[in-house]
Amino acid sequence: MHIDLAKPILDKNEKIAAENRALFDEKGIFVLDLMASPGSGKTSVILATIEALRDKYSIAVIEGDIASSVDAEKIKAHGIPAVQVNTGGACHLESDMVRRAVEVLDLDNLDLIIIENVGNLVCPTDFYLGENMKVMILSVPEGHDKPLKYPGVFQISEAIILNKVDTMPVFDFDEGEFRKSVGELNPKAPIFPLAATKGSGVTEWTSWLSSHIDAMPSRR
Amino acid sequence: MHIDLAKPILDKNEKIAAENRALFDEKGIFVLDLMASPGSGKTSVILATIEALRDKYSIAVIEGDIASSVDAEKIKAHGIPAVQVNTGGACHLESDMVRRAVEVLDLDNLDLIIIENVGNLVCPTDFYLGENMKVMILSVPEGHDKPLKYPGVFQISEAIILNKVDTMPVFDFDEGEFRKSVGELNPKAPIFPLAATKGSGVTEWTSWLSSHIDAMPSRR
Repeated sequence: MHIDLAKPILDKNEKIAAENRALFDEKGIFVLDLMASPGSGKTSVILATIEALRDKYSIAVIEGDIASSVDAEKIKAHGIPAVQVNTGGACHLESDMVRRAVEVLDLDNLDLIIIENVGNLVCPTDFYLGENMKVMILSVPEGHDKPLKYPGVFQISEAIILNKVDTMPVFDFDEGEFRKSVGELNPKAPIFPLAATKGSGVTEWTSWLSSHIDAMPSRR
Repeated sequence: MHIDLAKPILDKNEKIAAENRALFDEKGIFVLDLMASPGSGKTSVILATIEALRDKYSIAVIEGDIASSVDAEKIKAHGIPAVQVNTGGACHLESDMVRRAVEVLDLDNLDLIIIENVGNLVCPTDFYLGENMKVMILSVPEGHDKPLKYPGVFQISEAIILNKVDTMPVFDFDEGEFRKSVGELNPKAPIFPLAATKGSGVTEWTSWLSSHIDAMPSRR
């Protein structure tokens, strides 16, 4: 029953997402949709990514949350344009929310838009927003068994950031098991171990991201 | 649009939840719906709760997950009946899933059913399953700002477990800020600091839970 009722929403979402995509292509803007659980360090990863890439690209951020604007405030404090989108209860962003958010951005002078999706490992996987790629973050405290429990988000992600690796000694996280499970679900996706707040592992991730930005057809 | 489309689902869910509730009352079974993010330690909290209360009550567990049965296996390894419900993509349990799950349990010989909802701070808040109370877990690594971002789940919970408090030195978690935000959203809810895998703080939580079980009208 769920699936039938949701279909009109998904169709409408796909249509607007395609329009977003066309607009981003026209402007030569690479768009990254970042998905993760609450508290996995999405905002910290975004801040570390900005610091690594801000000299090379002009960056803006769209912050999706059920409520509050704390994340957008954090990003703006670093001198980066940020738009907060409050979903008012919905567990994911939809393409029309992104369309309204980009209306306030100066698209002619942007290279990269990072979308921080609502903290959730389930809902955001079903909604194409017009992004170039979806990337997910799992943080070490969440546990190495998450690929077994939330396979969809691991399958749809083009890369997987393993954040808070500096806390591995505190938690019973089996990195071998984690890599094995991810490898079965999504063998092509690279895994980037990161400690975003400490800055470690950031260069590997941002070099990979940068190579994808530079390879975007409308930017070459 | 979302709200209108979802209404028939919610109406049907409420009806079956009320039937579940009537059944649990008839059998004198207290039902706890436990909500949290992925990786916040729901299963560890359940195991600690079982160890503290298994001499006093006959307990069963319903494990909700998108996929896999790893959690039910963990519970069964402790000699406690556990039913795994795979939602096949849905981000929350619904009352008819609980109804089907309890069909395989020996309800005449149970005092307490603990439902581990799908790891998600958003979707489970909207779905009454027939439980006596909803309780949420936030783990320290998720950060003290979560009440601002996910107010709904903090408002609907009758108690809040703050898990992994042993990792507070590793994370930048401001317990004062956390308690202030929770107090504004839900001033009556007690907060139980816990380190479930270490056993600390468990007695305060299980004593409180036990007092609510014993106060259930159909058990007095």
